[in-house]
Amino acid sequence: MSKEITSRQVDYSQWYNDLIIKGELADYSAVRGCMVIKPYGFGLWENMRDALDKMFKDTGHVNAYFPLFVPKSLFEAEEKNAEGFAKECAIVTHYRLKNDPENKGKLIVDPEAKLEEELVVRPTSEAIIWNTYKGWIQSYRDLPILVNQWANVVRWEMRTRLFLRTAEFLWQEGHTAHATKEEALEETLKMLDVYAEFAEKYMAVPVIKGVKTASERFAGAEDTYCIEALMQDGKALQAGTSHFLGQNFAKAFDVKYSDKNNQLDYVWATSWGVSTRLIGALVMAHSDDDGLILPPKIAPLQVVIVPIYKNEEQKSLIDAKVNHILHGLKTKNIRVKYDDSDNNRPGWKFAEYEKKGVPVRLALGVRDLENNVIEIARRDTKEKQTYSLDNAVATIEALLENIQQHMFDKALAFREQNISNADNWDEFVRLLDEKAGFIAAHWDGTAETEEKIKELTKATIRCIPLNNPQEDGKCVLTGNPSKERVLFARAY
Amino acid sequence: MSKEITSRQVDYSQWYNDLIIKGELADYSAVRGCMVIKPYGFGLWENMRDALDKMFKDTGHVNAYFPLFVPKSLFEAEEKNAEGFAKECAIVTHYRLKNDPENKGKLIVDPEAKLEEELVVRPTSEAIIWNTYKGWIQSYRDLPILVNQWANVVRWEMRTRLFLRTAEFLWQEGHTAHATKEEALEETLKMLDVYAEFAEKYMAVPVIKGVKTASERFAGAEDTYCIEALMQDGKALQAGTSHFLGQNFAKAFDVKYSDKNNQLDYVWATSWGVSTRLIGALVMAHSDDDGLILPPKIAPLQVVIVPIYKNEEQKSLIDAKVNHILHGLKTKNIRVKYDDSDNNRPGWKFAEYEKKGVPVRLALGVRDLENNVIEIARRDTKEKQTYSLDNAVATIEALLENIQQHMFDKALAFREQNISNADNWDEFVRLLDEKAGFIAAHWDGTAETEEKIKELTKATIRCIPLNNPQEDGKCVLTGNPSKERVLFARAY
Ligand SMILES: [Zn+2]
Ligand SMILES: [Zn+2]
Repeated sequence: MSKEITSRQVDYSQWYNDLIIKGELADYSAVRGCMVIKPYGFGLWENMRDALDKMFKDTGHVNAYFPLFVPKSLFEAEEKNAEGFAKECAIVTHYRLKNDPENKGKLIVDPEAKLEEELVVRPTSEAIIWNTYKGWIQSYRDLPILVNQWANVVRWEMRTRLFLRTAEFLWQEGHTAHATKEEALEETLKMLDVYAEFAEKYMAVPVIKGVKTASERFAGAEDTYCIEALMQDGKALQAGTSHFLGQNFAKAFDVKYSDKNNQLDYVWATSWGVSTRLIGALVMAHSDDDGLILPPKIAPLQVVIVPIYKNEEQKSLIDAKVNHILHGLKTKNIRVKYDDSDNNRPGWKFAEYEKKGVPVRLALGVRDLENNVIEIARRDTKEKQTYSLDNAVATIEALLENIQQHMFDKALAFREQNISNADNWDEFVRLLDEKAGFIAAHWDGTAETEEKIKELTKATIRCIPLNNPQEDGKCVLTGNPSKERVLFARAY
Repeated sequence: MSKEITSRQVDYSQWYNDLIIKGELADYSAVRGCMVIKPYGFGLWENMRDALDKMFKDTGHVNAYFPLFVPKSLFEAEEKNAEGFAKECAIVTHYRLKNDPENKGKLIVDPEAKLEEELVVRPTSEAIIWNTYKGWIQSYRDLPILVNQWANVVRWEMRTRLFLRTAEFLWQEGHTAHATKEEALEETLKMLDVYAEFAEKYMAVPVIKGVKTASERFAGAEDTYCIEALMQDGKALQAGTSHFLGQNFAKAFDVKYSDKNNQLDYVWATSWGVSTRLIGALVMAHSDDDGLILPPKIAPLQVVIVPIYKNEEQKSLIDAKVNHILHGLKTKNIRVKYDDSDNNRPGWKFAEYEKKGVPVRLALGVRDLENNVIEIARRDTKEKQTYSLDNAVATIEALLENIQQHMFDKALAFREQNISNADNWDEFVRLLDEKAGFIAAHWDGTAETEEKIKELTKATIRCIPLNNPQEDGKCVLTGNPSKERVLFARAY
């Protein structure tokens, strides 16, 4: 397999696939639309998951686990939700295989083991969870319920992309139950803030918080809030959603609570989720033509050390010094690897870790030892610099922080440069085609116009930003009056 | 719902279910044979998972993730494995629902969305993983592969029990690939040791390490090693297995590597797993008629503090002292909760935390403050003792360690008392019925005799212990010669 990565200019989509495959984040699998998350990619996901999990727990949430399967009768209970997911569900219909009588060594589905009621492999878990909550909630004392689940879900997508859109993906889904509308709304926005903070502080990806239009809402939600990120090709990517579900699921599953005055009322709900899709966002936001660029806070490997030597004597001098640095870095909980394998030359290793996006690379030779210096290269800017060996650990620690901040700043500057106002249709179309990015434009507020714009340009309303400035204007398509600009973009 | 727990004497099986449900570990679900793991139960599983995960990583393993679905043609590739699991597989046959034309608001499986090839919901992942490894392994340089996966799996069981046997369960499955038989065997036994250490040090459950007979082997394995634990009713429970797979899967999926001399050979394999079933073992090994008894190392909550007060003035005096203790305990990473809710009286809270198996309970009233003492109750022995408030934190820390050790010692003593030698058939049957536990007996080594004994007594050979003493004897059933005793028991 070639080590070459297709450049962004030549084929952006191939560049992305090359990064994922050659950076060893994931692999195609034998199952249509499903991927294998390789150890390096899974290490990245573990770091993301652990940081998010801590943020969830710090905001009072606990984890639980609900069944993979949803009986069809439960699945269809909340009608809009069912309608939204029905077309992309994997369905279990049988529970046994048997030997194929006509083909020795082969198996067939046993027709006698047909389920009375089919099971839907969860595309999302509102139905099974709200059916469970019914048994957990009687009084206001049982509220709020602040539960999260880390799980796999399946949505049968026809056109799949590694991480961005796969039939099976990993995600977390929070499902909370509240006594009041206000509390549920507060929770919805609190978790949107958690997602935004995670995206910006850990992934170094700036995001815009906003609310979806009715046609882009989660099926079964009253309102869907989201964080939207911008990729290097000027397309937007929805990086997380937080839904205010109103009383829809409580009504569908008859979940009522008695308040302090013994009055019965339906429970208020939220749900919120982010998935392995975030890895796709991370890759496309930061990487370059030489490979991945991973933010230090979540990089599986933060530092790699490569020795440069000609013989065993040199090697052991280097080893001694490196062991000292390794110890110092590990004491600081810095994830470091000393690659002293003799299978490959230093140049090969440099390219390899560049491809994998390791934030900091150290190279150390005997000449460096004599001069008491070490060469430190940062992946993001590709700058190399020579530092004193005396305070290498402190230098690296500061550099990791610097890289994290610099990656965010760069992505933010790019995003800011790529939000444009369009005040008429020609401008709108020209900007979309020539510059892309987010386009802030007036819209008349109708689903018809939204749909028409999507048909004409493939651009969708990504969101109405929170705290959006109000201004009078005219819809870019219809010229009808509008009170605020909304953000359009072509999107993943 | 009654707070009462059925006693072990009255109905052991109901006692177990009561502990799980009333201890809030899990709940039944709307899906046949699937359970909901409640937050308290999931907190326990998280602690177990994190401890195991660290042990896996400390022994050089990394995590990855493979698809939930296995195409039928891959599933059937390793014939014995397929045969072993074919009868209990959930099968996905369709990928879409549509509106029921005859029943508004209802959905039916869309017959036009039938899969060309059915997908098996993984009952275990050897097939999909070895099909993937084929692409990862060319040369000895690619070996070993030391990968673990945390995942859900589905085995369609007809008779289910919470945690012990559920259609869907959570587990980890290690899948390793090696250049030599010796290395694979070493890995198999290394992971058996990891499991035994985890069971004994974290779960406080003593286990016997051994190897399964041919008829009890994992389908597709050359040898299955296991750890076997003893429950309080004298039945055994297989708590973990580690399989030496030989070259079976490498041959089924054509996975070869070239060695240093460029010779091609099939790769050697192991797999090993433990599941949420461990929670069932934990519950049945330690608990009593008042509820769960959880070992401190993995208990979701290690310490609970209950204030005893008559008015707000008293309460604030107690609060001040408790906050001091809380701070001290949290500094030591002890999982503690101050239950000062005024919904329930102290006596109710005592019973509640007893039921949930919280290892240590503190009660603090104003009289105690005056005397500078605190009442500390340990869940395992139910002993209560008054200690000086001055070194409460150190006292609690030591007590937690003491409880952990005491729980193990008690379970070990029970196990030792319940291993009996049987030297003839009458003795074998009598011991099984009157005493239960493990019975060490001679067996003639044939599958026929093993099967006959199972038919007659429901006892199975749990394992042939590692380092089993060799002695001449006669099979308890047939009288044929035997070189060693094996361990029989009725089992979960
Ligand atoms: Zn948005
Ligand atoms: Zn055994």
